[in-house]
This record gives sequence, structure tokens and C-alpha cells, in this order.
Amino acid sequence: MITIYGYSPSGNCHKLRMLLGHLGRRLDQDFRWIETDSAHGATRPPEYLAKNPNGRVPMIEFDDGRRMVESNAILCWLAEGTPYFAGDAWQRAQTLAWMFFEQYSHEPFVAVARFICGWTPLDSPRRADLPKLRERGHQALAVMEKHLAEHPWFSSEGYGIADIALFGYTHCADEGGFDLGAYPAIRGWLDRVRAQPGFVPMPPIAMENAELVAQSRTA
Amino acid sequence: MITIYGYSPSGNCHKLRMLLGHLGRRLDQDFRWIETDSAHGATRPPEYLAKNPNGRVPMIEFDDGRRMVESNAILCWLAEGTPYFAGDAWQRAQTLAWMFFEQYSHEPFVAVARFICGWTPLDSPRRADLPKLRERGHQALAVMEKHLAEHPWFSSEGYGIADIALFGYTHCADEGGFDLGAYPAIRGWLDRVRAQPGFVPMPPIAMENAELVAQSRTA
Repeated sequence: MITIYGYSPSGNCHKLRMLLGHLGRRLDQDFRWIETDSAHGATRPPEYLAKNPNGRVPMIEFDDGRRMVESNAILCWLAEGTPYFAGDAWQRAQTLAWMFFEQYSHEPFVAVARFICGWTPLDSPRRADLPKLRERGHQALAVMEKHLAEHPWFSSEGYGIADIALFGYTHCADEGGFDLGAYPAIRGWLDRVRAQPGFVPMPPIAMENAELVAQSRTA
Repeated sequence: MITIYGYSPSGNCHKLRMLLGHLGRRLDQDFRWIETDSAHGATRPPEYLAKNPNGRVPMIEFDDGRRMVESNAILCWLAEGTPYFAGDAWQRAQTLAWMFFEQYSHEPFVAVARFICGWTPLDSPRRADLPKLRERGHQALAVMEKHLAEHPWFSSEGYGIADIALFGYTHCADEGGFDLGAYPAIRGWLDRVRAQPGFVPMPPIAMENAELVAQSRTA
């Protein structure tokens, strides 16, 4: 059985739940989930760092001790041989290109803005970063919108792991102060993702985080 | 023939030159290189953005108009079917994990610190970011050092594209103010990479950039 070390409100971790849902794998039957609150230091103890020196979630582990880190690499492995990572070498590399885009040009802005809004106090000095993060995040959203004007999916050959990777933080971008009103193609794509067989929604964030998000909107 | 839009001092672009060198492909015979100075706006004209809306280098283009972006996705495609991207699905995903690490946990700190030192004026407000960038960059280098204490390479099954990806900016990290003296395993690995057949060194950076780097060291 696979053990996943993950933090439920993390889009990076939720990607794995999404793909496992599409693949029909069931919690506690096909995989274990060990809640690992990376927002409160759960990836910092020496036992965790011994397994993942980079101190991040998600991480998967087998009973024989084999491990893998990096959400998008884990998606590639889990999706191997399935329609979620389909196509020839060129098409699969195009799928990977969107996954590298997600980690380099999208997540560091869209996800980090959400984290600051929902997981840091209203007087955190990190909030000074929000305008720049939102500017860069909107640049990423504009690149996505442009692609979706001409293509239904980010993955080659139909819905797949590049869509799952980009859904991870785009679907909750509003919690970071991103208004998706100006991105009709993204909104249509989010709806198409939610309609996929076996789709698993992210659980709602905790009350304290939701309150900080709400206060960030009016701050 | 493949056309590469690249900026020579960019580690992300140099990755492609390295792999093509290992594969025995020759400049102007097997591929074209169009120098695209991203540090001075060459990725901003509408003609470039029409091809790559994310406005970055490198980008590859075929004569029939097919294009691919994201340095590490291009490496995957060019290395397909060669020993530089070898192994089974698990091993290839482990190689990808290091490539996602490179783009998320290494490049935004090690490469950006180098850019600020060599490509921004000495009074640039961006220089205030350097201490934080160096702290995060050293965290990435420590993760690499730990891995290399037990493994010769980052790619599964021998030298390959994860090593090329990480070499891109590690070999010139000193230009960003990173002293590699505390990382003997990284220094040994850099030497092993340089000894690989067909290795292509990055060209020296321009005089004006080298002068800014030197002045950054004493500033």
C-alpha cells in the first residue's frame, strides 16, 4: 500500500487525491493518508527530514521504504500507463512543459498569495509581498486563458496530469485574492475538470484560515 | 532542423547546449541557435509572445512550426530513447523529481541571485533580496550535498538530464555569491559532469556582467 504524507488544504497534495480518485483508488484500501501539517512545522522534525531533506509535502512511501517527492513527479509515476499521461514522447513532453510552468510560473505566486492570506496573521510583514505576487499570478492566469481559448485541456490527448497539476491552486485562487471573473476560459475549464469521472473536491479550509481569507479581502 | 531561441549566459538555455553536445549534435548542422537576450527584453516583442505567451527562453521550434517551451520539458523530449533519460517508470519519475526540485527549490534562488549580481546596477533595489535568496539557495545546495553523499548522480541509472538541469546554475553559483567551499560532494559532482563525453562549457559572461559580479563580491 502507498502511504501519502500530505496536508489536506495544500493544492500540491490534493493533486494526488484527485488522480487517485480518477483512477478509482480508495482511501485506506489502496492508499493511506498521513495528515502532515506543513503550515505548522510537521515537515521539520528530524524523522521527516531524514526521509525528505527538502522538508516538503507531498511525499509517498511504500512499505518497503521506497519514497518519492515532488507532487508533479508523483503524478507522472501514478499516471504511467493510464490515459492521464498519454501520447507519444513529444506529447508527453508538452504535458510536462505545463507541469514545469505550474511549478515555476504559477504556484510560487498563486499558491503563495493564498497561503499568506489564509495562514499568516493580518499584520504579517509577508503581506507586503501580495501586490507583486498577484501581478505575477495574473500573468500566469493570462497564459492559461490564452491556451484555453484554443485547446480544451493542458495535457496532450485529453484531460490528464497537467490539468490536475494546474487545477491544484487555480480552483482556489480566489482565496489568494485572485478574481477569476476576467478569465472565462479558465472558469469553463475548471467546470470541465470538476465533471471528470471520480473527481474528488478539496475539503473546505479550516475556520481559522477561512476567517483570515475573508479578512484579507476587506483589509 | 531544430531552432533554439536561447540566451547564452542563461543556465536554463545552456542545459540544451549541454545535452545536444552529449548527443553529438552540432551547431548549424543539427540545430540553429538564435541568440535571444531575455535580460534586455528580447522575449517581449509581440512576435515572440505570439510563439511563447509566457515570454521566456529557451524555446525550440521546428521548420513546420511545432514548438516547445520549458527547459526541463525540452530536455525530456531530446533525451527520450537515450541513456540520458533511462530507467523504468519509477526511475524516470525520480529523475523528474530532481528536475522539479531544480525549478522550484533551486533556480528561483541560485539563478536569481546570480542575475541580480551580474545583470542589475549596484544600486538596484532588487539587491535587498540577496540575503533571503542566498539563504534559500544554500538550503537547496544542502539538499544536493546530502544526496551526493550517497549517490553519484541525480538522474536514475547514471548521468543524465537531472544532472544537466542541476548543473545549469550550480556550476556558476559563485557568480551569485554562493561559496561552494562547504559542499565537497557538489564540487566532485561538478567535476564528474565536466568529464562527460561531449561536455560543452557555458561561454564566459560578458565583461559588463563580470564586472558587476566582481563589484557585488566586494560591495
